[in-house]
Amino acid sequence: MAAGQIFGLGVGPGDPELITLKALRLLRAAQVVAYPAPETGDSLARAIVAAHLREGQREIALRFPMRPGPPPAALYDEMAERLAGELEGGADIAVLCQGDPLFYGSFAGILARLAPRYRVTIVPGVSSLTAAGAVSGAAIVQRDEVLTVIPATLAEDELTRRLAGVERAAIVKIGRHSAKLRRVLAGLGLIDRALYVEHATLPDQRILPLAEIDEGAVPYFALVLVRGPSR
Amino acid sequence: MAAGQIFGLGVGPGDPELITLKALRLLRAAQVVAYPAPETGDSLARAIVAAHLREGQREIALRFPMRPGPPPAALYDEMAERLAGELEGGADIAVLCQGDPLFYGSFAGILARLAPRYRVTIVPGVSSLTAAGAVSGAAIVQRDEVLTVIPATLAEDELTRRLAGVERAAIVKIGRHSAKLRRVLAGLGLIDRALYVEHATLPDQRILPLAEIDEGAVPYFALVLVRGPSR
Repeated sequence: MAAGQIFGLGVGPGDPELITLKALRLLRAAQVVAYPAPETGDSLARAIVAAHLREGQREIALRFPMRPGPPPAALYDEMAERLAGELEGGADIAVLCQGDPLFYGSFAGILARLAPRYRVTIVPGVSSLTAAGAVSGAAIVQRDEVLTVIPATLAEDELTRRLAGVERAAIVKIGRHSAKLRRVLAGLGLIDRALYVEHATLPDQRILPLAEIDEGAVPYFALVLVRGPSR
Repeated sequence: MAAGQIFGLGVGPGDPELITLKALRLLRAAQVVAYPAPETGDSLARAIVAAHLREGQREIALRFPMRPGPPPAALYDEMAERLAGELEGGADIAVLCQGDPLFYGSFAGILARLAPRYRVTIVPGVSSLTAAGAVSGAAIVQRDEVLTVIPATLAEDELTRRLAGVERAAIVKIGRHSAKLRRVLAGLGLIDRALYVEHATLPDQRILPLAEIDEGAVPYFALVLVRGPSR
């Protein structure tokens, strides 16, 4: 029996209508649907496509620990082996990826392990970055502007170094790093140029100046857009 | 009569299947469809959605000059007035945007002029960036990596300054700037870390090391991904 293939499908930032025709077609064709999920509880990627799942599709929740820092390599090894078992059995697997699979997605860890052995197709999706831009109602970046995309997980001095003199920036992975980020941006005189966007395109979406957020309640799926002074 | 509204629709990077359900629905509902086009010849944004256009939809080609540099403000003023005329007549207008409307899109110029007077909805799309990542088969950016997005239109010294010590970079708007870009990357020791992606997701897509391209034939819709040394 021929091995199955794996499809890394970007399902978009949250609004179920922001999935592409291609991701939807390949999702519905797959025998197995896998998705990232927290250690306990529901997967947001699955929720985005819930209305489109077919009767009889088998599901695999890829559960990631909520601990700070990147997931251990051994966890990716284990997930990859579980998926490989399905592929060896001949099943095609759709791996759901919130936003885009390769823009800060956990799919990269799966891809690195399975691409040498199996056929992998990647379908790009609407990223959290362009979703945040759309709901903010202003250009993310235009003409000859430079955009820097920075994870808030970086150390404070590194964040400061990267954000100094920035033209346009998008800061991802905010979560518990919001207080540090606010200090850095305030120190650089950029705090009033920072827009906070939470759960862009979802019903509970929030958009407000970063200076006004309640630091205690910032989720992982939040993003900050910074519009620095013009050159 | 109530004024119409304007929809800035990201139609994705080129593969017609990479349009979202939302963009497709709003495209089909609009009375007028507008799209960027060269001074003479066909619009790529229109070609992407050609199969979905309805009988009876009126079309407006927004023709941009092929000259180097940003289009003059007067041209955007004129386009905005033409669209405003349709909106005043009660028509809803879908403005097609290749990739994403606000990620280096010409839609920003329309938006700035019409948003103060009319209702504007922006639907994010799959950008050229995530499309290039998908066809390259490797992560654009992951974990705590920083991504810098840089237009090749910058002056050589500015390009050099921005690319020095870069971790992950995407260089957009290549076109006639490829020779300059190659010089800059070679000078920084990054030329062998640069992947050239042309017309990602279209049938004539090409992916090759930047060092191997024929400089005479680089289109505007090409992108270079740079994977710098790890921290």
